[in-house]
Amino acid sequence: MAKSQYEYVKAFETAEKGLLNTWMVIRLDGHSFSKFCIQHDFEKPSDIRCIELMNHAARSVMKVFPEMVLAYGQSDEYSFIFPPKCNVYGRRKSKIVSTCASLFSSAFVFHWATYFPGSKLQHPPSFDGRMICYPTLHNMRDYLCWRQADCHINNLYNTVFWALVLKGGMEQKAAAESLKGTVSGDKHEILFTQFDINYSRLPEVYRKGTTLHWASEEETHVRTTNKAHQPSPDEGRILG
Amino acid sequence: MAKSQYEYVKAFETAEKGLLNTWMVIRLDGHSFSKFCIQHDFEKPSDIRCIELMNHAARSVMKVFPEMVLAYGQSDEYSFIFPPKCNVYGRRKSKIVSTCASLFSSAFVFHWATYFPGSKLQHPPSFDGRMICYPTLHNMRDYLCWRQADCHINNLYNTVFWALVLKGGMEQKAAAESLKGTVSGDKHEILFTQFDINYSRLPEVYRKGTTLHWASEEETHVRTTNKAHQPSPDEGRILG
Amino acid sequence: MAKSQYEYVKAFETAEKGLLNTWMVIRLDGHSFSKFCIQHDFEKPSDIRCIELMNHAARSVMKVFPEMVLAYGQSDEYSFIFPPKCNVYGRRKSKIVSTCASLFSSAFVFHWATYFPGSKLQHPPSFDGRMICYPTLHNMRDYLCWRQADCHINNLYNTVFWALVLKGGMEQKAAAESLKGTVSGDKHEILFTQFDINYSRLPEVYRKGTTLHWASEEETHVRTTNKAHQPSPDEGRILG
Amino acid sequence: MAKSQYEYVKAFETAEKGLLNTWMVIRLDGHSFSKFCIQHDFEKPSDIRCIELMNHAARSVMKVFPEMVLAYGQSDEYSFIFPPKCNVYGRRKSKIVSTCASLFSSAFVFHWATYFPGSKLQHPPSFDGRMICYPTLHNMRDYLCWRQADCHINNLYNTVFWALVLKGGMEQKAAAESLKGTVSGDKHEILFTQFDINYSRLPEVYRKGTTLHWASEEETHVRTTNKAHQPSPDEGRILG
Ligand SMILES: Nc1nc2c(ncn2[C@H]2C[C@H](O)[C@@H](COP(=O)(O)OP(=O)(O)OP(=O)(O)O)O2)c(=O)[nH]1
Ligand SMILES: Nc1nc2c(ncn2[C@H]2C[C@H](O)[C@@H](COP(=O)(O)OP(=O)(O)OP(=O)(O)O)O2)c(=O)[nH]1
Ligand SMILES: Nc1nc2c(ncn2[C@H]2C[C@H](O)[C@@H](COP(=O)(O)OP(=O)(O)OP(=O)(O)O)O2)c(=O)[nH]1
Ligand SMILES: Nc1nc2c(ncn2[C@H]2C[C@H](O)[C@@H](COP(=O)(O)OP(=O)(O)OP(=O)(O)O)O2)c(=O)[nH]1
Ligand SMILES: O=P(O)(O)OP(=O)(O)OP(=O)(O)O
Ligand SMILES: O=P(O)(O)OP(=O)(O)OP(=O)(O)O
Ligand SMILES: O=P(O)(O)OP(=O)(O)OP(=O)(O)O
Ligand SMILES: O=P(O)(O)OP(=O)(O)OP(=O)(O)O
Ligand SMILES: [Mg+2]
Ligand SMILES: [Mg+2]
Ligand SMILES: [Mg+2]
Ligand SMILES: [Mg+2]
Ligand SMILES: [Mg+2]
Ligand SMILES: [Mg+2]
Ligand SMILES: [Mg+2]
Ligand SMILES: [Mg+2]
Ligand SMILES: [Mg+2]
Ligand SMILES: [Mg+2]
Ligand SMILES: [Mg+2]
Ligand SMILES: [Mg+2]
Repeated sequence: MAKSQYEYVKAFETAEKGLLNTWMVIRLDGHSFSKFCIQHDFEKPSDIRCIELMNHAARSVMKVFPEMVLAYGQSDEYSFIFPPKCNVYGRRKSKIVSTCASLFSSAFVFHWATYFPGSKLQHPPSFDGRMICYPTLHNMRDYLCWRQADCHINNLYNTVFWALVLKGGMEQKAAAESLKGTVSGDKHEILFTQFDINYSRLPEVYRKGTTLHWASEEETHVRTTNKAHQPSPDEGRILG
Repeated sequence: MAKSQYEYVKAFETAEKGLLNTWMVIRLDGHSFSKFCIQHDFEKPSDIRCIELMNHAARSVMKVFPEMVLAYGQSDEYSFIFPPKCNVYGRRKSKIVSTCASLFSSAFVFHWATYFPGSKLQHPPSFDGRMICYPTLHNMRDYLCWRQADCHINNLYNTVFWALVLKGGMEQKAAAESLKGTVSGDKHEILFTQFDINYSRLPEVYRKGTTLHWASEEETHVRTTNKAHQPSPDEGRILG
Repeated sequence: MAKSQYEYVKAFETAEKGLLNTWMVIRLDGHSFSKFCIQHDFEKPSDIRCIELMNHAARSVMKVFPEMVLAYGQSDEYSFIFPPKCNVYGRRKSKIVSTCASLFSSAFVFHWATYFPGSKLQHPPSFDGRMICYPTLHNMRDYLCWRQADCHINNLYNTVFWALVLKGGMEQKAAAESLKGTVSGDKHEILFTQFDINYSRLPEVYRKGTTLHWASEEETHVRTTNKAHQPSPDEGRILG
Repeated sequence: MAKSQYEYVKAFETAEKGLLNTWMVIRLDGHSFSKFCIQHDFEKPSDIRCIELMNHAARSVMKVFPEMVLAYGQSDEYSFIFPPKCNVYGRRKSKIVSTCASLFSSAFVFHWATYFPGSKLQHPPSFDGRMICYPTLHNMRDYLCWRQADCHINNLYNTVFWALVLKGGMEQKAAAESLKGTVSGDKHEILFTQFDINYSRLPEVYRKGTTLHWASEEETHVRTTNKAHQPSPDEGRILG
């Protein structure tokens, strides 16, 4: 079984690369997380244990890739950002994306018990990944704004929805029905008048997601910008 | 924070696809596994616990992708094969590759304790992934022959090397030196005369790796072809 | 102005390649040929001078690429076929496609006066190009059947349409209206009963297009299979 | 011959695109132009008729693509620049590159007789093409500097080389030998002392190539910046 006669098959490999001098973003997203959250009885609309586990997994990824400048997480997704000058793995898309997805998933399972001490992980979860390249800082910021706006809209909706269901005693169907056509202001209003919740005083981590970046050189660890349970009144812009 | 003004950034996503009507192979490979094996005190040259954990993780992947027709594993790598007609995830490379890498890693950590009951996992391991497309069955078979030949060559070498070191008491450097320039026959000879080992009677799982395929329809579970510790005299060809 | 400080920009080039061991097809298609045909007062539905000029241009392309095994032309398009083993220009898509489009266009203009002696070329025409890879001979044949079926359908329609207009004295709008909903048999019928035209006796070159392949080794020139004006009763299949 | 059963082959087409919001450069380059120049007895080192024909062909391309902001030509090559916002043909690489290569070649042949009235075109020439994407204006400028530096270096070398051969009576081999190891200053010196040529007084069009851009809105034609035979003392930078 001489290996050489078969080695020609290696030449079928391709290696698509992220365009040089562009920001490379890797976004991971949990596979069928809606189901996963129900299976594991996550708190609604957001489970702080899940957020912190996601953040821990994201820190594990960043520690392996010191070139990353920022990571942003919300819901079941995390985005990792490599700067334009970065040449990690020759910018090979598959290599970078698969390694990030692998590391994140591996760390998620690895640290599960720390964040869900009483809850057994039912099955191995998975996260898909993709790379997107952005040529300008402006595009890069808009990407983060896009993901953060997604966080904001979903979280506001989910917060009202679950308030109506869990505190207001409505059926899920009726709650959904009653929210049809409502705008942002209406939802704030419902929360405030019916449930005495000032939405903008809820912890930032729920409303805005989590940004990870490197701390100053003296401290070499990753720092999490948004601290859970510490409400903050101002709605800052990402990278602003 | 209207989401719509940022949504244009979604258009920067690309979705490279595996060419239609070709075999799609996903190969995963452990990141820095040489180090990982030492850190976890794996048996040399192969640790059956690792092989069985890898196989378990691979079965987890196959169960999520019933379209896969075969998987082949050896050393720290696993290859998964989708047939030409398969349209999973629209054949998107990143989506498929990242999901496989994620699932495999997740399952590897998830089942670690089952296969390494006394050994704590030190850190989350990772596996990179890539997709390779083969237009013909002939190329597809040659791919598997290539990986199996790799298994064979490395395993024969490592078996002699570690016999010389662990049983023969040689220094690693001296063992490596003494094997320079030896051909396959020489290595069989050394094993047989110096260590009374008939290489071709060693368990197939070490010499040939593991092939996973679907059992007949009655049984719906994944079946592992090569059983560890059951030596078999004939060196069959993959897919032969 | 030292060149070296700028040479880094060369690294931004990418070189997508046709997957190894697949058939590579280059299809060229005339840009806005409907307009071009009117501007140059082409005969309707097909102008044999145009067909022969296209064939000449295609032969020029084939002579530059002896690796091509076949070319097929109809209407304002031509497809060139490289076999799976071919390694021309390392299978770089842009290099191959652009060279074919360039050569074809260049030859089209170069030989214009030979085929249109009395008619001045009004402006430089252009042809776009693309590469498509087919993994199997079956797919490759179906591609040619697809293009030939396109030829057949369009030519049958155009033949009836222009008969109605040019010989039947109908307005173009009325002719188009009268053909709505008709099937192939209806069109044969109209041609036969109203214009005494037996469609299947019209020259093959109009009904089937032109296939170019290499003649036997003794003759080293390119041979055109379909001869214009020589009606042939049987409708052969491409590559059949 | 129903077309529908074959139409599935269309799905094998791919459409790689230039990354959004990047500069798209199309560079065309003459195939085997060294030979072509000899065959057509071009003047050495540069033939102004060829330059002007190339410029004319390039203007033809620009007129078809009003989105182009600039074109730069030298030797047997031309680069065409689309700005980041441009969405021509959905930014499809093959479509854009092949159309440019086709148009340029077509126009080159079309206008040949105007620039080479006494000289018959021997055979249809061809130009290959590629697309390169640049994320920043800085990269875009460096690209043009790279091509202009290439022009400068080659033109200086060729000017001295052909002066030594044609005016100095040296054999080509001896001339090449005598220039080995010489730097820019040496070549200026040889030209000045031996042939009374002040290199920087030679027409810019030879030393710097040609830049095409759109004239002010009042005039709607394409304007050629560098005028042949009009020496200009200052060596301006591209886009500077
Ligand atoms: N209850 C609860 N649900 C959460 C939490 N974090 C995320 N989720 C849920 C909300 C959404 O249903 C889901 C994320 O939305 P996706 O669009 O990613 O959907 P999903 O992952 O189900 O499908 P996919 O496989 O990504 O297409 O995860 C949490 O902390 N608590
Ligand atoms: N002792 C021991 N070593 C193993 C076993 N399975 C795999 N290995 C080691 C042998 C090789 O050093 C390594 C696999 O080779 P690779 O070429 O994949 O190298 P590695 O993963 O270190 O680097 P990479 O990140 O893939 O470039 O894993 C095992 O069961 N026992
Ligand atoms: N009268 C006449 N028309 C022809 C002849 N050969 C081709 N044509 C016309 C028929 C069609 O209108 C046109 C080819 O169809 P296409 O779909 O390629 O359209 P066209 O080139 O106009 O647009 P495109 O730029 O390819 O999207 O050329 C000919 O010999 N005589
Ligand atoms: N005598 C003369 N030669 C020229 C003129 N313009 C270009 N050339 C020649 C100089 C070079 O030999 C050649 C262009 O260099 P390339 O690197 O593009 O080489 P070539 O086209 O031969 O090969 P290629 O097919 O591009 O790899 O064309 C001209 O005006 N007069
Ligand atoms: O891992 P290999 O041997 O297939 O080789 P590679 O992909 O070229 O290298 P790397 O693993 O470093 O990405
Ligand atoms: O692959 P999917 O199904 O997640 O779909 P998508 O088009 O990638 O969409 P999204 O970015 O919303 O996950
Ligand atoms: O033409 P160049 O110098 O850009 O180099 P290349 O594209 O690598 O080579 P070729 O012209 O032979 O395709
Ligand atoms: O020309 P077609 O019919 O193959 O279709 P297309 O390539 O999608 O369209 P276009 O010619 O406009 O690029
Ligand atoms: Mg998704
Ligand atoms: Mg999800
Ligand atoms: Mg999500
Ligand atoms: Mg590797
Ligand atoms: Mg490895
Ligand atoms: Mg390996
Ligand atoms: Mg078209
Ligand atoms: Mg057309
Ligand atoms: Mg057409
Ligand atoms: Mg070249
Ligand atoms: Mg050239
Ligand atoms: Mg050149």
